[in-house]
Amino acid sequence: MHEPGFFQQLVEAELKKIPFNFSPAELYEPIRYMLSLGGKRMRPSLVMMGTELFGGDYREALTPALGIEVFHNFTLLHDDLMDKAPVRRSQQTVHTKWNPDIAILSGDTMFVKSCELMMQVNDDVLRDVMNLFHHTAIEVCEGQQFDMNYETKETISAEEYIQMISLKTAALLAASLKTGALVAHADEVDANHLHEFGKKTGIAFQLHDDILDLYGDEQKFGKQTGGDIISNKKTFLLLSALETAKGNDLNELKRWLAMKEFNPSEKVNSVKEIFSHLNIREASEEKMDGFFQEALAAFDQVRVPREMKIPLKTFAEKLMVREV
Amino acid sequence: MHEPGFFQQLVEAELKKIPFNFSPAELYEPIRYMLSLGGKRMRPSLVMMGTELFGGDYREALTPALGIEVFHNFTLLHDDLMDKAPVRRSQQTVHTKWNPDIAILSGDTMFVKSCELMMQVNDDVLRDVMNLFHHTAIEVCEGQQFDMNYETKETISAEEYIQMISLKTAALLAASLKTGALVAHADEVDANHLHEFGKKTGIAFQLHDDILDLYGDEQKFGKQTGGDIISNKKTFLLLSALETAKGNDLNELKRWLAMKEFNPSEKVNSVKEIFSHLNIREASEEKMDGFFQEALAAFDQVRVPREMKIPLKTFAEKLMVREV
Repeated sequence: MHEPGFFQQLVEAELKKIPFNFSPAELYEPIRYMLSLGGKRMRPSLVMMGTELFGGDYREALTPALGIEVFHNFTLLHDDLMDKAPVRRSQQTVHTKWNPDIAILSGDTMFVKSCELMMQVNDDVLRDVMNLFHHTAIEVCEGQQFDMNYETKETISAEEYIQMISLKTAALLAASLKTGALVAHADEVDANHLHEFGKKTGIAFQLHDDILDLYGDEQKFGKQTGGDIISNKKTFLLLSALETAKGNDLNELKRWLAMKEFNPSEKVNSVKEIFSHLNIREASEEKMDGFFQEALAAFDQVRVPREMKIPLKTFAEKLMVREV
Repeated sequence: MHEPGFFQQLVEAELKKIPFNFSPAELYEPIRYMLSLGGKRMRPSLVMMGTELFGGDYREALTPALGIEVFHNFTLLHDDLMDKAPVRRSQQTVHTKWNPDIAILSGDTMFVKSCELMMQVNDDVLRDVMNLFHHTAIEVCEGQQFDMNYETKETISAEEYIQMISLKTAALLAASLKTGALVAHADEVDANHLHEFGKKTGIAFQLHDDILDLYGDEQKFGKQTGGDIISNKKTFLLLSALETAKGNDLNELKRWLAMKEFNPSEKVNSVKEIFSHLNIREASEEKMDGFFQEALAAFDQVRVPREMKIPLKTFAEKLMVREV
């Protein structure tokens, strides 16, 4: 069995080998660029770890693992365009470096390419792998649409937010693990428990991200905290605060949200103060822990020897303290 | 065996039955809208006619036929956005009626849905059908990129134009027929001859379109001729003219192309006059006929009884005189 670091390096090397050097260059250059921006390659690692969990050979899961990474990068490419994000991983986004049309079409091409990679599995698992892939791709699109809707929607519940991240973020993490299980011919019940583990871990992971944005160690994470507060981002923290705040706290919170001009650190500190009255940090950590415990309970039900579970369990635990 | 009209009605009815009524509505409403705009449903009809050509049951080809129609509409949706087209079939385009983000994401979702429909074939043809589908989808993307490149590129040869329409338009027509052949378990050689028939017919069809735009019967086709001339569209006619014109004809042609303000009918008549010196109509018709003859020669090589070929041959011939 292998560690995530092994898979990350493998994926990095294998992505470079995929021939994306056809004509027209305007279509393929942005694809190579997008895939060269790096990242933790978490999803393809999860595919191969899912295969090894059931005693399978990770090499059989390599192409669908790459397929999921290419798909993930396709969604980032189109999301960046829809979100008008100028920068990804300290580099220009594709629609900024080239133009929106090229971002649309090279994204479409990446999606087809990801389908082709997903198809490179044995016949006896082909249909299951592809059905899961398509089902998940639809979930990711739905999640992105909910996310866009929520930007302009006045009131969203914390529950709606969880539902959105479950589609937009957690679904693909869950599908990565299950794809690995399918390649290893895992029993359906086990594969579904692993999917559940991935889904719940994914939700906990996103909540952790929201918490870290405000309460993370600035030096450790290399970015200033409070960015979500400054941009009024509807995270679990803010939505919970809006649900529980009353009287003066609610008025103050709304006042800060409506303010057009402000001193950023004053806004962060003031909102943080309100969150503190409402125990938002504790409530969010409790929610996150709840999902992670549910994730581990699902993982416990996967019927493989305990020692086979060590790499994935360690990986998930590290994710939760964000050491990876 | 059935006529195209039978399949057109069937597709129209079956498209309405596909459940595109999930949440969020912002994602699915544009998909229903796009599919409701109508059209000749030529591609799905070709799929089912391809199946019947080999004695297969068209009902087995129905879902991949719908998949190809949904895919085709996905490409129209994204192309309209990239081309900034405000109208399709006398209705607002999706990005105009909603917005560009919704056009991107509902398009992406349509593509996934088309993959799901394509998958609904028997196991023994699944891999062949999907490989053809993905290969063709890439060709269509490449064709669209070449088309976008050519809009700003100074000089394009008539040959480059043929290559572009071969990818953007003809590839999917060819794949439609071949998908039908695969579903009917046609021999590979026959399936490839049918593909060639579709490809060459598709190119001839597009050349016919270019010719009709300038030389068509205005009353019969219900639109004014010369639109391509007015917009400087790089059609086979214009590119051939630029390749063959010399001296005064070339200067005059370039002058009209560079002119910012002009009387539309004066421009159309003047360019038509230059085309007449250069025998552009005849050359274009000859080129079109050449492709159609090559198409028929490929079709002749498909080893099925002559009477099985009647519906497809009739359909192709009607396409060439644009009676369908």
